[in-house]
Amino acid sequence: MLLCDIGNTSYHFLDGAKDYKKSVTTFKPQSVEEEIFYICVNPEVTKILKHQKNWINLAKFVDMKNYYETMGIDRIFACEAVENAVIVDAGSAITVDVVKEGVFEGGFIYPGVKAMQETYANISSRLDYSFNFECDLDIMPKNSQDAISYGFVKTLYSEVISHNMNVVLTGGDADKLKKIFKEAKIEKELIFAGMKKIIKKAKIC
Amino acid sequence: MLLCDIGNTSYHFLDGAKDYKKSVTTFKPQSVEEEIFYICVNPEVTKILKHQKNWINLAKFVDMKNYYETMGIDRIFACEAVENAVIVDAGSAITVDVVKEGVFEGGFIYPGVKAMQETYANISSRLDYSFNFECDLDIMPKNSQDAISYGFVKTLYSEVISHNMNVVLTGGDADKLKKIFKEAKIEKELIFAGMKKIIKKAKIC
Repeated sequence: MLLCDIGNTSYHFLDGAKDYKKSVTTFKPQSVEEEIFYICVNPEVTKILKHQKNWINLAKFVDMKNYYETMGIDRIFACEAVENAVIVDAGSAITVDVVKEGVFEGGFIYPGVKAMQETYANISSRLDYSFNFECDLDIMPKNSQDAISYGFVKTLYSEVISHNMNVVLTGGDADKLKKIFKEAKIEKELIFAGMKKIIKKAKIC
Repeated sequence: MLLCDIGNTSYHFLDGAKDYKKSVTTFKPQSVEEEIFYICVNPEVTKILKHQKNWINLAKFVDMKNYYETMGIDRIFACEAVENAVIVDAGSAITVDVVKEGVFEGGFIYPGVKAMQETYANISSRLDYSFNFECDLDIMPKNSQDAISYGFVKTLYSEVISHNMNVVLTGGDADKLKKIFKEAKIEKELIFAGMKKIIKKAKIC
């Protein structure tokens, strides 16, 4: 079974146990001949895939009543993968979604690591530091690097743990956030797990 | 007594009860003839003011042992103004500083309202919303505008209130944050209050 999670910059494939990425600008979806199940947040690619009969959009098999219209389909599939958890998906944005008893309760969006670092640097060259993910969040900072690191991660951390639920980390910067969310579980293939669950539920494979 | 708090963009004067601002690019400090007490975070202006005998830099009268070297002098003077509080100074950056029994315990830096709004818009045009400061922080959002509003303010709020201390709001966006920090006190002239306290302590006026 071939799965594909399409973002703004890449096609992310899962072929059995093997995953790989292809650039949105160069990859030709026509080159795939077998049946492939996908989700896609990229409006341009969505248009192209509509005309490819072997590309099956899983979005239409999800019961949307608990989600909201403008919510990214990748967030929805991550939510479908869990029963009880706060999902922290750390990409260009960090999305935080709460699922209780298999039902999406709501979520919020926080800027991603790279975006936030640029934000500080743009405010002042004196705030142009890399984040220190090792900084001690139990004491208030007394230096500039820790002051922005704490500002970025402790605020996020305080909110996330206030839900008193298991935390699941996914996305490209999951490893960085793991240094802060020490008890969290990393699940790199969370979206694919959600896709598999929907395929099973809809009995389409 | 004439006081002046100089930032990156403006001279902020307090003349008795009257306060007013002048642009850093056009104002001539030589035009002030009387004695004036100032603090300044702007390195260019600091250089110019060194040669003006009637401009008295209050920075040298502060006991720096509890602060850190790269900490903005405006933050330091805000801290000098309080005995027990979390100070949230909402400008181009939002600085959050904890003072206990008159001693600075540490602080962190969070992006300001404008910077953060631009950050979301740059991540995706689908996140290009104004923040909703009226959004209900007790429930997890189910729409995009509240998802970014919550991401910006609830994270900050959760961290700040975790200190279980009185919150003092200051800076240009204090009124916006007051909608979230409902129990907080707004003190627009906090830095000037710190300056007056140092002047009194140092017996220079």
